[in-house]
Amino acid sequence: MTHENRLLLKKYLSFWDKLTPLEQTYIEEHTNLMTYQAGQNIHNADINCLGMIIVKTGCIRSYILSEKGKDVTLYRLYPGDICILSASCIIPHLTFDVHVDVEEISELLIIPSTILSKLIKENIYIENFSYKIAADKFSNVMWTMEQILFMSFDKRLAIFLLDESNKRQTNILPLTHEQIARYIGSAREVVSRMLKYFASEGLISLQRGEIILKDIEKLKKLTL
Amino acid sequence: MTHENRLLLKKYLSFWDKLTPLEQTYIEEHTNLMTYQAGQNIHNADINCLGMIIVKTGCIRSYILSEKGKDVTLYRLYPGDICILSASCIIPHLTFDVHVDVEEISELLIIPSTILSKLIKENIYIENFSYKIAADKFSNVMWTMEQILFMSFDKRLAIFLLDESNKRQTNILPLTHEQIARYIGSAREVVSRMLKYFASEGLISLQRGEIILKDIEKLKKLTL
Repeated sequence: MTHENRLLLKKYLSFWDKLTPLEQTYIEEHTNLMTYQAGQNIHNADINCLGMIIVKTGCIRSYILSEKGKDVTLYRLYPGDICILSASCIIPHLTFDVHVDVEEISELLIIPSTILSKLIKENIYIENFSYKIAADKFSNVMWTMEQILFMSFDKRLAIFLLDESNKRQTNILPLTHEQIARYIGSAREVVSRMLKYFASEGLISLQRGEIILKDIEKLKKLTL
Repeated sequence: MTHENRLLLKKYLSFWDKLTPLEQTYIEEHTNLMTYQAGQNIHNADINCLGMIIVKTGCIRSYILSEKGKDVTLYRLYPGDICILSASCIIPHLTFDVHVDVEEISELLIIPSTILSKLIKENIYIENFSYKIAADKFSNVMWTMEQILFMSFDKRLAIFLLDESNKRQTNILPLTHEQIARYIGSAREVVSRMLKYFASEGLISLQRGEIILKDIEKLKKLTL
């Protein structure tokens, strides 16, 4: 493990100071830095569960999938964020499973499930950290659920476009209608119809594979 | 606090043996046994948060509510179950709020938020217990969310009727269409339409304020 990655572990694992030197070395020796390509599925109910993931670069997406293939994004994780649902197999109180995909080329630090399982049994601070991360994700999921159940669709779409524009620091979003539908848990037809409506209202303009936000103020009004 | 209630604390709070005698006494002295009537709201975003609830008798329901009044049940708690979302104000990683109503006359042991907050800071086993309970509820909510997002409505309704029948140990359910709609997060009209369809298929019969399950086997087939 490089010095840089060691520093990242120390920075993002808030229980680090509660570990014995032996436990610290054990984690350093068994944590893997993996690089994944955009679109790769790295965790689901059927494959062995990966372990605790620390996002070093890139972005990963956690979602649930129906038997019919309907896909609902729960949340995305960016550099510094930690994924614990990818270790749900060893966390007795997490009795459900999600899918995790890599959205853009990503470097991930992974503490394998077998290693994490041993540490959780030994050290209550690691166990506690894992459950705190889960509680954060619970809060994310509740937010998502309220969006889906309660919010009118124009509002949801406007919030999504503004969020993306903020994250990417640009008004030009290289997103297909299909992608947006997947991200906000809707159907492509529904997204296309609303985008056309937004365009006709002068809020955005539509190019092939691109959406240009034109009237940020009016979009923001939709989110109120 | 009665001897009986002391025993309940010891039984349901799995961290009990990790407490100092002083901490045990502190909890015993500050835990309140409260009796609530059916229909009472005991926790929501606007009133001070109650604390950790241990259901002694009865049943409480946790749900979210939209601005327009749409109500979605997250889960129900029965004797021995513990509610931690009613103490979310003192749990830093739970950044959302839910409503909690009493469904039938209930006796609840309540450790007030101020007391719990002090204990969580002092004793990591109590903190850890609280997050584990939250993780259980996260699992409940994910299940509910998948039901709502993915499942066809006839399946959801059939599962609900069979669950109720199992819980109550009877095929005669004293439920209005309005109540069912609230419990499964749907509209009364939608529920009424599907119940009439079930009745026309001979699965149930409808009486004023009652639903009688007639063909359990056929109902079960709908849930597959």
